[in-house]
Amino acid sequence: MNSFGRVFRISIFGESHGPSVGILLDGVPAGLLLDEGDFTNDMERRRSGAKGTTPRKEADRIKILSGLFNGKTTGSPILLATENTNTRSSDYIRISDIPRPGHADLTSSVKYGGYNDLRGGGHFSGRLTLGMVAAGVVAKKILSTFMFNAALIEAGGTQDVESAVNKALREGDSVGGIVECRISGVPAGLGEPFFDSVESLISHIIFSIPAIKGIEFGAGFSAARMKGSEHNDSIVSPGGKTGTNNAGGINGGITNGNDIVFRIAVKPTSSIARTQRTMNMETKEMTDLNIEGRHDTCIALRVPVIVEAAAAIVLTDLMMLENKIPGIIK
Amino acid sequence: MNSFGRVFRISIFGESHGPSVGILLDGVPAGLLLDEGDFTNDMERRRSGAKGTTPRKEADRIKILSGLFNGKTTGSPILLATENTNTRSSDYIRISDIPRPGHADLTSSVKYGGYNDLRGGGHFSGRLTLGMVAAGVVAKKILSTFMFNAALIEAGGTQDVESAVNKALREGDSVGGIVECRISGVPAGLGEPFFDSVESLISHIIFSIPAIKGIEFGAGFSAARMKGSEHNDSIVSPGGKTGTNNAGGINGGITNGNDIVFRIAVKPTSSIARTQRTMNMETKEMTDLNIEGRHDTCIALRVPVIVEAAAAIVLTDLMMLENKIPGIIK
Amino acid sequence: MNSFGRVFRISIFGESHGPSVGILLDGVPAGLLLDEGDFTNDMERRRSGAKGTTPRKEADRIKILSGLFNGKTTGSPILLATENTNTRSSDYIRISDIPRPGHADLTSSVKYGGYNDLRGGGHFSGRLTLGMVAAGVVAKKILSTFMFNAALIEAGGTQDVESAVNKALREGDSVGGIVECRISGVPAGLGEPFFDSVESLISHIIFSIPAIKGIEFGAGFSAARMKGSEHNDSIVSPGGKTGTNNAGGINGGITNGNDIVFRIAVKPTSSIARTQRTMNMETKEMTDLNIEGRHDTCIALRVPVIVEAAAAIVLTDLMMLENKIPGIIK
Amino acid sequence: MNSFGRVFRISIFGESHGPSVGILLDGVPAGLLLDEGDFTNDMERRRSGAKGTTPRKEADRIKILSGLFNGKTTGSPILLATENTNTRSSDYIRISDIPRPGHADLTSSVKYGGYNDLRGGGHFSGRLTLGMVAAGVVAKKILSTFMFNAALIEAGGTQDVESAVNKALREGDSVGGIVECRISGVPAGLGEPFFDSVESLISHIIFSIPAIKGIEFGAGFSAARMKGSEHNDSIVSPGGKTGTNNAGGINGGITNGNDIVFRIAVKPTSSIARTQRTMNMETKEMTDLNIEGRHDTCIALRVPVIVEAAAAIVLTDLMMLENKIPGIIK
Repeated sequence: MNSFGRVFRISIFGESHGPSVGILLDGVPAGLLLDEGDFTNDMERRRSGAKGTTPRKEADRIKILSGLFNGKTTGSPILLATENTNTRSSDYIRISDIPRPGHADLTSSVKYGGYNDLRGGGHFSGRLTLGMVAAGVVAKKILSTFMFNAALIEAGGTQDVESAVNKALREGDSVGGIVECRISGVPAGLGEPFFDSVESLISHIIFSIPAIKGIEFGAGFSAARMKGSEHNDSIVSPGGKTGTNNAGGINGGITNGNDIVFRIAVKPTSSIARTQRTMNMETKEMTDLNIEGRHDTCIALRVPVIVEAAAAIVLTDLMMLENKIPGIIK
Repeated sequence: MNSFGRVFRISIFGESHGPSVGILLDGVPAGLLLDEGDFTNDMERRRSGAKGTTPRKEADRIKILSGLFNGKTTGSPILLATENTNTRSSDYIRISDIPRPGHADLTSSVKYGGYNDLRGGGHFSGRLTLGMVAAGVVAKKILSTFMFNAALIEAGGTQDVESAVNKALREGDSVGGIVECRISGVPAGLGEPFFDSVESLISHIIFSIPAIKGIEFGAGFSAARMKGSEHNDSIVSPGGKTGTNNAGGINGGITNGNDIVFRIAVKPTSSIARTQRTMNMETKEMTDLNIEGRHDTCIALRVPVIVEAAAAIVLTDLMMLENKIPGIIK
Repeated sequence: MNSFGRVFRISIFGESHGPSVGILLDGVPAGLLLDEGDFTNDMERRRSGAKGTTPRKEADRIKILSGLFNGKTTGSPILLATENTNTRSSDYIRISDIPRPGHADLTSSVKYGGYNDLRGGGHFSGRLTLGMVAAGVVAKKILSTFMFNAALIEAGGTQDVESAVNKALREGDSVGGIVECRISGVPAGLGEPFFDSVESLISHIIFSIPAIKGIEFGAGFSAARMKGSEHNDSIVSPGGKTGTNNAGGINGGITNGNDIVFRIAVKPTSSIARTQRTMNMETKEMTDLNIEGRHDTCIALRVPVIVEAAAAIVLTDLMMLENKIPGIIK
Repeated sequence: MNSFGRVFRISIFGESHGPSVGILLDGVPAGLLLDEGDFTNDMERRRSGAKGTTPRKEADRIKILSGLFNGKTTGSPILLATENTNTRSSDYIRISDIPRPGHADLTSSVKYGGYNDLRGGGHFSGRLTLGMVAAGVVAKKILSTFMFNAALIEAGGTQDVESAVNKALREGDSVGGIVECRISGVPAGLGEPFFDSVESLISHIIFSIPAIKGIEFGAGFSAARMKGSEHNDSIVSPGGKTGTNNAGGINGGITNGNDIVFRIAVKPTSSIARTQRTMNMETKEMTDLNIEGRHDTCIALRVPVIVEAAAAIVLTDLMMLENKIPGIIK
């Protein structure tokens, strides 16, 4: 299902080269000030332009097509969409018989019987994350006392991200990276032991962002190599603050009032300039494949703002479920 | 919510020291042969007994309390439960003012206002996974052509699991570990790009298993350090088989017909024999804490069968959503 | 799906002649006093015994099997069940080849491939409503300021219910009836225009009660014969009280603060003592059918308490969605 | 929630005088031929124009904004929307202090704190049903072997609908009506005993259509006045055909293969030309109210095509849940 959330609920739609991409939001409280200008900053963060990312430039201007009246949300569904304008379709001639390694060409073809829109990845395109970022902007406005801060902390195995990207660019290759997200201002008590732990919900939405292959909370995989006496976070204040934060702000699936911290693994962009080997499904023989078009060298560069949006969407839903956000904002 | 799944749906209930623990299954096809003996093997795998796990011995005999007629499922909900018998309650006198580091004592107290059952962890207990394992047994029977194989591949930072556990036991400490799960026989085409990718659904349920702090699919976090030319799996057969399996059997959120492979990080057991420091919430002063009772030295030892169950639950749901499992099994 | 509700959520299970029937409740606030004695009164109202109802007498004692600690709810799922003890199975030898008119014999057989438990109706039995009544008891406790009042206002086309039932009993026949439910103390603002109007949700659960074939709110079908000038309820107080209540307390799908009023049509019991004609599915010839066993002459007599429960379940969910019930009751 | 359905899922949005109204469809099989011309006929049926309906004329041209490729559905979400063009806003100056009898003015104001768009009813407008009709067009295409036939069978208490409407028009009043819907070609076995009976699902969506106050299936309220020997439908063919159809094609919540038949009560249009009395919420005194603008004299005239759409939406979902519709249409 292309929907996510229980009371703050998002429904995503669109294709990379179709008429539009966007998101439908349900459950937004009434009375929230909202303006198309609110989206500019995070859209810009997600956009292409930085070295190593695709030079495709979209206006990416979000339009609010329902749910707004006199500059405030009404409590009814909010349709956020952008038109796709700058699409160079000729770059994306469908190569249906030759699935690109690392892409969803083959899996989507099996699933949809070949009817899916393969132009630029269609509904599987990273462009769909534009809708997630737009929803995240609204979520962050609702969670006005939270602070979201995601950053790329490593690319191609080094913290010198810029040089890793430049090197890959020169080699006609791509690199993956690791994004860390920290969220402060989160009250204790959000989440459930079964099955909607905070980790469950965040990982659920995070793994729908294209190219994500791993997630860890707090000490994460390092915890597997620790002793209990090292890993346990000692509680050092009556408010529940802990001396260390190996738990990443979550115990038993529930926030403990410390910062939520998680890291995600972003794989290297699948489309690379170098020649690759793959199967021609028509001739059933191995063949060389050269992928044309514009591509990000390091898709991880764009991921931080998407990750913030994903986390904000989850936490808005949880805050509403705990009655910590009113249905009407005054 | 204590439920999970869209058409094959589980609802968990129970407390460690309450009358019973179990699970309610909805959406099970009619006509499936099912017997209380079917549960014995996986219950035994989950049970205590191995070195380093708690000596608490429960019969853990699953009773089928609805949805069965003439030895076959009826298509109606199946209630699976076990009675809690061997509970030494005196071990678990509630220490409500002194939250144990690493446990959900504080978060559950905040969330439920102190009304939650803290005896042995209550609803947060690892004992609840018994219901998940029971549901997994049914799911595996439905997915009769799949092979599930999870194993502890590392504990305390070493592959010599036994010595790591023994060492921690001697030291009155605990150790974490890494569990790897491989699933073969999975057809291509399961899962969705948004928001129900296979990774999304598996991670959602996996993170509701107590003590899990990370998950990675295929190359996972290693992918973040690879180049695209290294990471991309070359397709080498017309059926979609790939030479490597860095994708872990999933592209664009959808199974590609190769083995699904994922690893999870299990933190060290929070309850340890050594003295710990924590806050006394009544006096608001730091205090020593000694935890009595029986505890697993390495909870990760019990996790593999739970992970298999979790994956089987997800895949049964996805197979049903793709019409690949009939509503009536003959 | 055998579940209903968004945050106050019920999951029903059991068969008429299986080991147990009951319901699993999720989303019950923590801290609510609850005792097995709380169920006695409504269970008694639902029970057999009155003239025209089946003489089958069950203890119908509800056991609380999870989610309770020190006499109060914990916030975790509450399993409510009763064991089936007084089942005279010999009355219910399965007549699989000869579907009984008015019953679900044929439809359930098609749906479940003949694997469903037909003893006494199995999962389709009116006995399942016992779980709904139990959930309703909890819901009514949560909605402590609401008043629920359902009554049978007509049977066999007359308000002299007793004589209608006696007449049908003498004739070896059965009669239907109309149940009216009034609920007072409901605040304005519950429900949604799309798709969860109060009428939508109440009718959804009501039509899962066996034997219900119609529902109308306020003036209902009479409204279809009225002019707007007659039907519109004039608002006569600043609090929103209306002079008439043709709307049944609901405008635009949302409660208006006046009493919710609805009526439901209950069909006559399908099992009757008189000989009926039906098809023998084996021989494919018409045949006489005589139904043995104990049956209600007027099932509508038992319906009021079930209807109250159904409405209470819906309204608890809506009150929670509007943040009007705290997650912790003190 | 503004969504409905389990696997064929609709999400509605828009306001009467906002930028657009429409619907987002999820779960549509891939490969279905779809064209904007497909919507013309049912849009026309829903449109204004007939005597007694509002003279407001909208192009009501549905645009397909996602999920289509090469003239066929792709399996991804389909966004269907129309722009609102012909809105005479001056007619609808908000009379926030004087709630109109029969309308949702007061209830929506309470629910949304006065932030909802009241222009022309905003999100509560009958105009929103345009999205339902659009979804119904897609559903009917999927259910190509079903026949849907809804008609207004009574208005103002008479079968001479035209004269009833003319009379009300002359009197500056409005009239209600009764719509009957018959659906043939439905296979046996759709629906569930709990809680998703066919009656439950149809009534759920039907009651979100503005102005509906009652629904009955088969004999409906007449059943409450019948004896079992009269009401029971005798099965007369091995295929399950019944001699009578008092059950309306549904037994135990499940279709029996006979026609589904139901009737709904539509209240008279709330907006009437005649002066009405209501409360001025500012002055807290009773006042006269005259409603200007264009209004349907008999909103029931427009309801049949909406009812067909609603039923088609439900049945598509149920057909998919029973694996009777493939995920890929060839």
